[in-house]
Amino acid sequence: MSEQSRQWTAALVVIGDEILSGRTQDKNVMQVALWLNEQGIRLEEVRIVPDDAQRIADTVNELRAAHDYLFTTGGIGPTHDDITVDAIAAAFGVPVIVHPRARAILEEYYRDRPGGLTEARLRMARVPEGAELIPNSTSGAPGVRMENVYIMAGVPHIAASMLDALTGKLEGGRPMVSVTVGARAAESDVADLLRETEEAHPGVAIGSYPFFKDGKYGANFVIRSEDGELARNTGDDLASRLKAAGYDPIGGGI
Amino acid sequence: MSEQSRQWTAALVVIGDEILSGRTQDKNVMQVALWLNEQGIRLEEVRIVPDDAQRIADTVNELRAAHDYLFTTGGIGPTHDDITVDAIAAAFGVPVIVHPRARAILEEYYRDRPGGLTEARLRMARVPEGAELIPNSTSGAPGVRMENVYIMAGVPHIAASMLDALTGKLEGGRPMVSVTVGARAAESDVADLLRETEEAHPGVAIGSYPFFKDGKYGANFVIRSEDGELARNTGDDLASRLKAAGYDPIGGGI
Repeated sequence: MSEQSRQWTAALVVIGDEILSGRTQDKNVMQVALWLNEQGIRLEEVRIVPDDAQRIADTVNELRAAHDYLFTTGGIGPTHDDITVDAIAAAFGVPVIVHPRARAILEEYYRDRPGGLTEARLRMARVPEGAELIPNSTSGAPGVRMENVYIMAGVPHIAASMLDALTGKLEGGRPMVSVTVGARAAESDVADLLRETEEAHPGVAIGSYPFFKDGKYGANFVIRSEDGELARNTGDDLASRLKAAGYDPIGGGI
Repeated sequence: MSEQSRQWTAALVVIGDEILSGRTQDKNVMQVALWLNEQGIRLEEVRIVPDDAQRIADTVNELRAAHDYLFTTGGIGPTHDDITVDAIAAAFGVPVIVHPRARAILEEYYRDRPGGLTEARLRMARVPEGAELIPNSTSGAPGVRMENVYIMAGVPHIAASMLDALTGKLEGGRPMVSVTVGARAAESDVADLLRETEEAHPGVAIGSYPFFKDGKYGANFVIRSEDGELARNTGDDLASRLKAAGYDPIGGGI
């Protein structure tokens, strides 16, 4: 495979009983996915696993070998159910240490806060030996990078701040471009038209996403490619074909 | 393991490029998780995979062997990117057939609708040979059960209607009970108290979920157990301990 066409891939492991119990609606899959698109990296797979050290370690070892990058969210706070760092250290076969700079960041952050840097809060300075920190401008406690594994917070706005700190720092390919065309069509009525359009433009994938809105059926058709011109041309062609079939296509989607 | 303490488990495979690209916010993980709790079945693992037949088949074969039940959402509509049935038939090593009753349901459903039962719509009557149907009171096209694999729609309200049809039909254990206690406490200040409470009540798991609301930090503590009395007693004990530590615990959470 030439360097130009190399596809960079990532996986995400969402760690947390609260997602698997249905208590909490995950928001990290979507934000990590959108951020990766901008970095030219494709999110290939997500796994949601419970707060179980062995399960976390096994999943991390499988996925860090299978992808260029692995991200995790959840389980790096100060409480007893935050076991991600320990599990990932075990996955790498290294001990957990207190990172001096993480400790300094937390000392500074909690200096004027009630309670100060307690033993529980100091847990958030623990990293697998050999790891680096991911800055967190929101709440002090940093994320952790261990080789190609990026360990982030579960709280979405804190994870977002860690992604911000990583923006532009990861090697990737061309950003994925997506073009959306919407129509007030039942997707089953345009299934052939869609398949033919996709076949006429090798290198694009067209997804079809039906909805029911304002009392009417419709669908958005999403064309995705790393080749922006190809995506746009395919969008134009799809719009023409929809028009010829009697629909009123809407660029940008409905 | 005695029959009484048997833990019934399930996995969920969310199928769809639209989730991995960040275009669509998944809502099925949460609704399947909550529904499984009520059936006395624990959701142990979720995987989100792309619209790729081999990846779907491999994932289904791995997870259907590892769990009592496997659910899938997505990829059973009428368009070219709907490949779930084909992929799962391949996973089982059986051909895809048109299910006579599914065909009859679709004929009835589309009889008075524009376009009628087109070739594309008839795709939604295709099942792996040997499969049964899961009724769909919302939009006609049924879900599919193949042994312990439950194949459902990706559109959340259609998936919900398939779950409704399955309610009470699956063998499970006791429903999981959860009790929530909230407090305006930084979770790092009560980390020891939480750990001690959990240790004092074997058989419960306590999760800690911090938030920042109305300008103040707080956290909800969720106690989960299949033993409802144990969960409630632990909740009472946690509330007492929080009160003794100077907090104002709120039953039901904040």
